[in-house]
Amino acid sequence: MFSCCNCITAEFFLRVHLKEDNLTLPKEITLAKFAGFCYGVKRAVETVKKLKNDYPNRNICVLGELIHNTQVIDELNAMGIKSLKELPQKGDGICVVRSHGESPEVFEQIKNVGFEVYDLTCPDVKKVQQKAIELAKDGYYLVIVGKATHPEVIAIEANAKQFGENVLVATEVEELKPYELELKSAKKIGVVVQTTQMLSTLNKIVEYLTPLTKELLIANTICKSTSMRQSEAKELAKSSDLMIVVGSKKSANTTHLAEILKNITPTIHIETEKELDNHKDLIEKAQKISITAGASTPDSVIDKVINKIKCY
Amino acid sequence: MFSCCNCITAEFFLRVHLKEDNLTLPKEITLAKFAGFCYGVKRAVETVKKLKNDYPNRNICVLGELIHNTQVIDELNAMGIKSLKELPQKGDGICVVRSHGESPEVFEQIKNVGFEVYDLTCPDVKKVQQKAIELAKDGYYLVIVGKATHPEVIAIEANAKQFGENVLVATEVEELKPYELELKSAKKIGVVVQTTQMLSTLNKIVEYLTPLTKELLIANTICKSTSMRQSEAKELAKSSDLMIVVGSKKSANTTHLAEILKNITPTIHIETEKELDNHKDLIEKAQKISITAGASTPDSVIDKVINKIKCY
Repeated sequence: MFSCCNCITAEFFLRVHLKEDNLTLPKEITLAKFAGFCYGVKRAVETVKKLKNDYPNRNICVLGELIHNTQVIDELNAMGIKSLKELPQKGDGICVVRSHGESPEVFEQIKNVGFEVYDLTCPDVKKVQQKAIELAKDGYYLVIVGKATHPEVIAIEANAKQFGENVLVATEVEELKPYELELKSAKKIGVVVQTTQMLSTLNKIVEYLTPLTKELLIANTICKSTSMRQSEAKELAKSSDLMIVVGSKKSANTTHLAEILKNITPTIHIETEKELDNHKDLIEKAQKISITAGASTPDSVIDKVINKIKCY
Repeated sequence: MFSCCNCITAEFFLRVHLKEDNLTLPKEITLAKFAGFCYGVKRAVETVKKLKNDYPNRNICVLGELIHNTQVIDELNAMGIKSLKELPQKGDGICVVRSHGESPEVFEQIKNVGFEVYDLTCPDVKKVQQKAIELAKDGYYLVIVGKATHPEVIAIEANAKQFGENVLVATEVEELKPYELELKSAKKIGVVVQTTQMLSTLNKIVEYLTPLTKELLIANTICKSTSMRQSEAKELAKSSDLMIVVGSKKSANTTHLAEILKNITPTIHIETEKELDNHKDLIEKAQKISITAGASTPDSVIDKVINKIKCY
């Protein structure tokens, strides 16, 4: 299921020897192997573009922003693929459900206003929804680890709530404490995790739940792409003077990456190469710089960052 | 299921005013509510004595020491109830299986040498065995949290191994690491816990296992008696200058109690009141002393400790 999208373009140990005037040491720049587009995002972007090519005369739109990346959204817009902030009263053509997924109600609404639905829910996200449904059906008190406002979480929650009322969403133990008595009286508790969550967040929730119940089932649904990206970046950070995380500040998985790395080594989180100058001192001082990027960051954005660093 | 055996005899907030000559402050002595015999141990000791009373002319023996307490073993011996170090070639009368439980093979052997079996496996321990069997049958790779040499663990392991080969025993992550590849390739991992283990030990194992598998089922089989004893003692330790843990140094649950408390406040672990003098300085210096005791510690031993402290 995991597909490393960057394997072909990534120069894994790109060593850039700069200013070889013996006054400063050459910089060593490493691009993470698992940086950028994950399988689900790559699939979503490619399929939407293909749809527009295949049906140039049909209205192709996406409910919400296809991915958290302004450049990609602008590119799609230029192709005539609109991002709908909300469903119109009346629809025409194809409406794409993005990789985050949607609740069953929203699927219905898309059809009811007149659209044909094209479901691009990431298969890994689909698995979380299915696991959540299975646990709710089996009588587990369900805890979804994720931000309640994240579209993926909203859809997982809605899917589960079709089959069981006992569903909580949390990334902090504090959010669960008001329900401690309920959780204690539950015969069994099930946990699913929004695909791009941090393992440390899951661990904290699990540590809290373990003594509360006789049966705790943890479906570790953090996707392979996310877990490998995070663990690789952690390893890189240990031997780097500076980590650069490239990607939208609205993207949960990109923000998590930066959070994790900040505890290990100096880290900057930028959306594009333009922000690099804000951190000039840090970049000039660092000898070993490693770069990683969130699942919604296109290769082209990463490449521009690398090229600009070479010029420092 | 949980029965507080000490409720009647325990003086919960026993305040002992000593040396009220204004030179030293009066000591405040607190006996933990959940100190001493748990339900399973109380049941085992009472039943064995009743058996001897009911059948004075029959041979009544126990395979192993009924509980980890010399005084109790001596008392049973004096009544003519022997503790067998191992099974004889030929048996006669009733052989008791103690609260730790035994493997199915040992049950067979007891019968085969000619004994009648009297099963005093603690019902909570029985539940761990049943859960372990259920998980092994369901295809889970089973991890038993406990010491491999603990008789309860040996019996749980043997019960599970009837139905699945993939069974590991561990209290440390290091013990699992050699099997990491196997664990990673397991579709699902199940965890059961020896009833008197520490929650912190379970948490460490769970934190290690969570990222390895897509489905982790934790059957938190730490018994209520153990978890309440540990959590009450932790609370007491926070407001005490000295904790005294009474019970055998061979008893896992008593040793765990002392380990937990040592991280919170000065703690001494004694088997009987005779050892108190070894810690005279600590006891005299402490104003707030709290006492707790393991599941195999009789009230009489606890009472002697309290009475002796009053004399300091």
